[in-house]
Amino acid sequence: MNIQLLLTGDEVMNGDVVDTNSVLMAKLLKDLGLEIHKKTSIPDNLKLLIHEIKTITKAADILIVSGGIGPTVDDLTSEAIAKAAGISLCLDEIALKHVTSFCQKRGFPLNEPNKKQALLPDGCTIIPNPIGTAVGFSLKINECQVFCTPGVPRELSVMLRDQIIPYIQKQLPSHLRTTTTKLQVFGIGEANLQKIINERLPDWPKELELGFRAAMPTMEVKVTARMKTSEDLRNVWVGKLRSVLGCHVFGEDDMTLPGCLVKMLNDRQEKITTAESCTGGLIASSITKIPGASNVFEAGYVTYSNRIKAKLLGVSAKTLCENGAVSSQVVKEMLIGALGLSDADYGLAVSGIAGPDGGSKEKPVGTVWLAWGSKNNINTKCLLFPFGRELFQIFVAHVGIDLVRRFILNTSEEPFY
Amino acid sequence: MNIQLLLTGDEVMNGDVVDTNSVLMAKLLKDLGLEIHKKTSIPDNLKLLIHEIKTITKAADILIVSGGIGPTVDDLTSEAIAKAAGISLCLDEIALKHVTSFCQKRGFPLNEPNKKQALLPDGCTIIPNPIGTAVGFSLKINECQVFCTPGVPRELSVMLRDQIIPYIQKQLPSHLRTTTTKLQVFGIGEANLQKIINERLPDWPKELELGFRAAMPTMEVKVTARMKTSEDLRNVWVGKLRSVLGCHVFGEDDMTLPGCLVKMLNDRQEKITTAESCTGGLIASSITKIPGASNVFEAGYVTYSNRIKAKLLGVSAKTLCENGAVSSQVVKEMLIGALGLSDADYGLAVSGIAGPDGGSKEKPVGTVWLAWGSKNNINTKCLLFPFGRELFQIFVAHVGIDLVRRFILNTSEEPFY
Repeated sequence: MNIQLLLTGDEVMNGDVVDTNSVLMAKLLKDLGLEIHKKTSIPDNLKLLIHEIKTITKAADILIVSGGIGPTVDDLTSEAIAKAAGISLCLDEIALKHVTSFCQKRGFPLNEPNKKQALLPDGCTIIPNPIGTAVGFSLKINECQVFCTPGVPRELSVMLRDQIIPYIQKQLPSHLRTTTTKLQVFGIGEANLQKIINERLPDWPKELELGFRAAMPTMEVKVTARMKTSEDLRNVWVGKLRSVLGCHVFGEDDMTLPGCLVKMLNDRQEKITTAESCTGGLIASSITKIPGASNVFEAGYVTYSNRIKAKLLGVSAKTLCENGAVSSQVVKEMLIGALGLSDADYGLAVSGIAGPDGGSKEKPVGTVWLAWGSKNNINTKCLLFPFGRELFQIFVAHVGIDLVRRFILNTSEEPFY
Repeated sequence: MNIQLLLTGDEVMNGDVVDTNSVLMAKLLKDLGLEIHKKTSIPDNLKLLIHEIKTITKAADILIVSGGIGPTVDDLTSEAIAKAAGISLCLDEIALKHVTSFCQKRGFPLNEPNKKQALLPDGCTIIPNPIGTAVGFSLKINECQVFCTPGVPRELSVMLRDQIIPYIQKQLPSHLRTTTTKLQVFGIGEANLQKIINERLPDWPKELELGFRAAMPTMEVKVTARMKTSEDLRNVWVGKLRSVLGCHVFGEDDMTLPGCLVKMLNDRQEKITTAESCTGGLIASSITKIPGASNVFEAGYVTYSNRIKAKLLGVSAKTLCENGAVSSQVVKEMLIGALGLSDADYGLAVSGIAGPDGGSKEKPVGTVWLAWGSKNNINTKCLLFPFGRELFQIFVAHVGIDLVRRFILNTSEEPFY
C-alpha cells in the first residue's frame, strides 16, 4: 500500500517548527504494519500545492495532508484539493454548524475567516474535530483516498487516532492487518535483549514480529501480530517475553521511567527524596513533571558544592576530604542526610563529573557515584557515562530512577547500564 | 533560487527520529535570505532515491541531500547519485585517507564497510568532515549543484556552517547576499515589540529587514541586511534597537536565558540559590545544565510539601495556614530561608498550581507566586500561566530566571509576561 504525506505551511519550511506530526503519523501507521512511502513538505503556495496533490494522487493509495485548513488567507488546502480534483468548493452545512457552535462556546461571533473553514470540496466526507474550529475532510482523487487534517499537533492527533487510523485499518486487506503491544524496557541493551530472546524463547513464532526501538535512554520492544493470528497467541508470547525480561520491563504503551516510579510510589502510598549534585535538579524535575507527583515527592536537595553537601545534608568534612565529592562514601552520607531531613521511604543521591571540566585521570569526566535505598538499606554504585554534559545528566537521572524502581521491586536481577 | 532538500533514511520515515536537520538548514538559509522550495523525505530505497534525485535536479538550482553516506549496506546515496548522474563510483584518495586516519585515531583498523565510504561519484568535490568518518561531497547534475551530507545532526551542522552555507552565499548574486544579527528577547510580546519599534524607530531603514521568531518562551528578533548595504548601517540600527528594547534583550546569537544568568553571575563572581515548589527542580536543572554553573550555584531546594517548606526553609505554620502555600508571604519566607541556608547573593522562590488538579476559584490551575532578590531586597509577584502542567513549569522557570536577571541589572523597565 503506497501511503504518502504532504505537509504544508511556511512554518514547516522556514525552521520555525520542528515536524512532530509526521513522526506521530509514522508511529501510528507502523503499529498497523504500514510504512510511509514518501513525505513531501512545501510552503503555503497554491500552485505548488495543486501540482503536488495532482502528482501524489496519481501514485499513492492514501495521502494524508497536514496543515492549511485554518481560517487565514494562507490556508489553501481546501482550494487546492478542489482544483486538483476538478470540483468546486461548497459551504458545508455540518462544517458550518461545527464552526458556529465552536465560536459560540468561546463567546465570540462567527466571522468571515472562520466561515471560510466551512467551504469544502463538494462531496467530501467531514472528519470531526472535537477540540478546534477546523474540521478535517476526506475524498477520493484518482484512485487515492485523501485525508486533510490540521497542522496543530493536538488536533491532528485526535483526528488520526479516532478517525483516520481506524479507517485505514478497515481498508487493509485482512492479511495485512496488525496489532502491536509495546513494552518499555530499561537496564538492558539491544544486543543483550536479542540474546536473551534467542536463548530463552528459541521457538518464537514467526507470525509475531519482534521490533526494537531505541528511545534514548530507554528502549521499546514491540510485538506485532497480524490480525489473522489469534490475539491469544500474541498475549501468550507477550507474557513469555515479560517473564524472561523480568524487571527490565517497566511499563507498556507510553509509560516513562519517572512515570512508572511515581505510579509505583502512589500505589504504595510511599515517598521518595533526592539529593543531587551533578544532575543539578534534573531527577527532582523528572519526577515532578508527572501529574500526581506531589503525593510521592516532598523534598529534593540540590547540593552542588561541598560546603552545602556538608552544611545541608551533614556530609562530614573528613569524608569529603579523604574521598572527594565523587565517591561512594559521600553519596552514602548525602543519602542518609536527605532521608533524615525528609522522612521519605526511599532516597536517591548522585555525585559525579558532568564536564566539560573537572575530570582527572582517576575520575574522568562522565564518572558518577549513585546511592539509593532506604534508611536501613543503602546501596552504592559507580558508573561512567562519557557522553557530554547534557546526555550524562539524562543518563544519570534515568539510571538513578531505575535503581530505586528495582530496589522497591526487591529484585535480584542485575541491570546492564 | 530554487533550493530543495532530500532527506533519506528509514529512521526519518518510521518515526524513530524527529527531523531537526531540515530545521537547521532552513534557519541557516533564512539567515542568507533564502527559502526552501520543497523538502522530500524517502526511505532507504535505491530506486526511489535515483528517481527523486533525477526529478529534483531537473527543477532545482541547489539540492542538499542528507543521510545515506554511512558505512552500512542501507547507505545508498553515493550509488544513487552516481546512477542518477550517469557516472561511475571511484575510490577517492582524499576520502580514503580521511577514513583511514579517522579509524587509526580511534584505534581500530580500516574495514570494508568504512572503505565503502571512500567510494564516491567520479569527479565530485569532497566536503571535509572533521568529526566523523563520512565525508560529504558535491557535484553538478543537470544544472543543479548537489551537496551530499551526513544524517548525523552534529556532523551535518559542522559541514553546513563551514562549507555549504559559505558556498551558497558566494553563489548568490550580490544583490541577494545578506547578513543577519539575532537578538534574544524575553519579557515582551511580539505585538508590543512591533509597537515600540514603530513608535520609537519610525524611520527604520527599508534596507534592513526586521523579523521575529517565537522560540517559546523566548523570542528572537533578527535584523537582516543585504550585503550591498554597508555593515555600518546594520550596526547602527542594531544599536538603536538594543537601546529602545533595553533590558528585554538578554543576548545575541544562540544565548539562552539560563545561559545569560550563569554568565552574568560568573562575571560578577556571585551566586544564586533556588527554592522551588511547583517547578520541582526545573529551575535548578536549567541553571546546572550550563557548563560552568558550579561557580555560581551551590544549593537548590525542592520543597514540594508544606511540611518541608516549614521544616527545611523555616516557613512559619501561621503563614502557611493563613495564606496558603501559593501566596506572596510563603514565597517570601521560602526565599528568606533559602538565602539564609545557602549564603547566596541572589535567590528565587516559586510556589504555584501546576495542575491538572489543585486549583480553586480564587487560585486557578496556572497561578504562581514568585519571590526574588537578595537578603535585603525581596520582591514578589503573582502571575497566571494556564497552559497545562509542562508549559506552566517551563514558563515559571523562565520568568523566574528573567526576574533575577533584571534584578541584578537593577533596571526599572517593566517586563510584560
